[in-house]
Amino acid sequence: MEIESSTQTAVKPLRLGEGKKFYVGVDLGGTKIYAGLTNREGNILATVKELTITHQEGLAEQLPRLVERLLEEGGARREEVAAIGVGSPGPLDPDRGIVFATPNLSLHDFPLVEIMESHLKIPTFMDNDVNVATLGEALLGAGEGKDFVVGIFVGTGIGGGIVLNGRIYHGASKNGGEIGHMVILADGPACGCGGKGHLEALASKTAMARQFEAALAQGRRSRLFDEVPGPYDRLDTRLLQGLLDAGDDLVTEILIGVAHYLALGCVSLIHVLGPDVIVLGGGVMEAVGDFLLPRIKQEAFASSLRGTWERTEILPSALGDDAGLLGAVTLAKIGLNDL
Amino acid sequence: MEIESSTQTAVKPLRLGEGKKFYVGVDLGGTKIYAGLTNREGNILATVKELTITHQEGLAEQLPRLVERLLEEGGARREEVAAIGVGSPGPLDPDRGIVFATPNLSLHDFPLVEIMESHLKIPTFMDNDVNVATLGEALLGAGEGKDFVVGIFVGTGIGGGIVLNGRIYHGASKNGGEIGHMVILADGPACGCGGKGHLEALASKTAMARQFEAALAQGRRSRLFDEVPGPYDRLDTRLLQGLLDAGDDLVTEILIGVAHYLALGCVSLIHVLGPDVIVLGGGVMEAVGDFLLPRIKQEAFASSLRGTWERTEILPSALGDDAGLLGAVTLAKIGLNDL
Repeated sequence: MEIESSTQTAVKPLRLGEGKKFYVGVDLGGTKIYAGLTNREGNILATVKELTITHQEGLAEQLPRLVERLLEEGGARREEVAAIGVGSPGPLDPDRGIVFATPNLSLHDFPLVEIMESHLKIPTFMDNDVNVATLGEALLGAGEGKDFVVGIFVGTGIGGGIVLNGRIYHGASKNGGEIGHMVILADGPACGCGGKGHLEALASKTAMARQFEAALAQGRRSRLFDEVPGPYDRLDTRLLQGLLDAGDDLVTEILIGVAHYLALGCVSLIHVLGPDVIVLGGGVMEAVGDFLLPRIKQEAFASSLRGTWERTEILPSALGDDAGLLGAVTLAKIGLNDL
Repeated sequence: MEIESSTQTAVKPLRLGEGKKFYVGVDLGGTKIYAGLTNREGNILATVKELTITHQEGLAEQLPRLVERLLEEGGARREEVAAIGVGSPGPLDPDRGIVFATPNLSLHDFPLVEIMESHLKIPTFMDNDVNVATLGEALLGAGEGKDFVVGIFVGTGIGGGIVLNGRIYHGASKNGGEIGHMVILADGPACGCGGKGHLEALASKTAMARQFEAALAQGRRSRLFDEVPGPYDRLDTRLLQGLLDAGDDLVTEILIGVAHYLALGCVSLIHVLGPDVIVLGGGVMEAVGDFLLPRIKQEAFASSLRGTWERTEILPSALGDDAGLLGAVTLAKIGLNDL
């Protein structure tokens, strides 16, 4: 008897109570919060979506209330929820459950985990939103079954995450995986973070906006300039897709540049990390990935050393908008050691 | 009784025989082989150094013979050696013990481990030379006691290694840690590997040679050009050090550039891996590290995102020429699970 029980402990120290049937995943974004209720198998049973209240006190009330609404929608009782996972913008401390600061949400030392646990009495686990989305892709999406997975999410900025052997890689800084801030073009264009020539400063929507504005100033023509007066810092990716499909020269040229820099980012990651899978997601990839992805793959593999790239796949996000939500559920399961 | 023995097995499956008192570490280089005999505590008891025989058949005879000579020097019998570790130029397969190809040694699918084990009857473990040197620094040198260690070795090329939680990181490709081939300057100068703007193409001795030759072609003056007729592809680092100390303008300028690019390489590594320690070693650092290191640290930290660099130290190699040898011994110990 004793030997058997100690063996079980070594494999899975925490046994969930019989009544714990559900998990909650929360994808906290600068614009909206998207949350889902899943069963133990990870099937989504109900979802809710709300515009984010972008100040500290408001969000502290909104988050637990939104989870309660989600449980109601899904017909689940609090006591039946094993754990909650949250992906949040950072920088943050996943161990202490605190969001230090986020430009979009005006948060400052926001004790997210404590707020959830004190209101809902459900164990809560939190990590960086992009790490969580990469975790989702690594375990349930494009990287399923693989040990070395890197995520690159291209939107207003470029976020990244690294998942090694099914766990988020944090490094000593707890902020590893900042792939958007690799230096790709020394002394290149200014990055929002203060650096120069980072991947984010070359291949994000913000970088494209700067390129469009420079082209406009040079007297270049584009249907974009006829349709949108500018500034171009809040570029609609569907508009971009439409202009690309219509064969707009400037849009095509700028997206070829974006593919080039993303490919070089992949080259650096292939050489440093030798991953099984690089997952490319985010709004820009969702909209114009059909154009970008083949170019990125072709150049990244052609520009990598023999012996470094042959086992790497570069794949589009398989979970799309659900990556964050399902990643958050996975984070909660890992937190409870219930995977 | 049964419980106790199973507990021991989980911690350390392989018990060394009482007679195994020694380890052998071999640092196989393109020019010379440097091997050492250590006791279980890792103290070096004897060393031998030979010029490398740079063809396959010759080296297959030289390596076991050199180990026998080492044992003789150290007064050790074969049966007393627990294991041999070897750091070799790559690309190679550490699991199969085969060196695929090395430009300097003219090797081709060289079964290094099999050769050692069949001649010497001693278990042998092998890995990439720079990985092994990083392992030495991580466990016994500049990174001692730290979980996340990156090594950058600046010489003719730039080699790199990553050691996570005391083990060499290989990635899915088995060739991770190729830090010299991160893209730092998109579309920049050609790298020996065929890529462009890699760290190695900007900050290695080879890169400096190209810069000296370009400066000479432009009519720039330097005492280097008076003292050495060129070409500059086999630059003596002591000469470089002498010219720097003498205040040569061109040498100073080029080394400031080298520090700049190495700093940007550190920025990428800090953002992606958030390491505890980045160890900088190799011939160039040994010769002019006093000039380079403060500049690299200053720029790397100033150019990194808040929250990513504060826990990272950038340190010179602590083991110097012994990093490869002691790393190889560590590799052998890990191979036997005797650490």
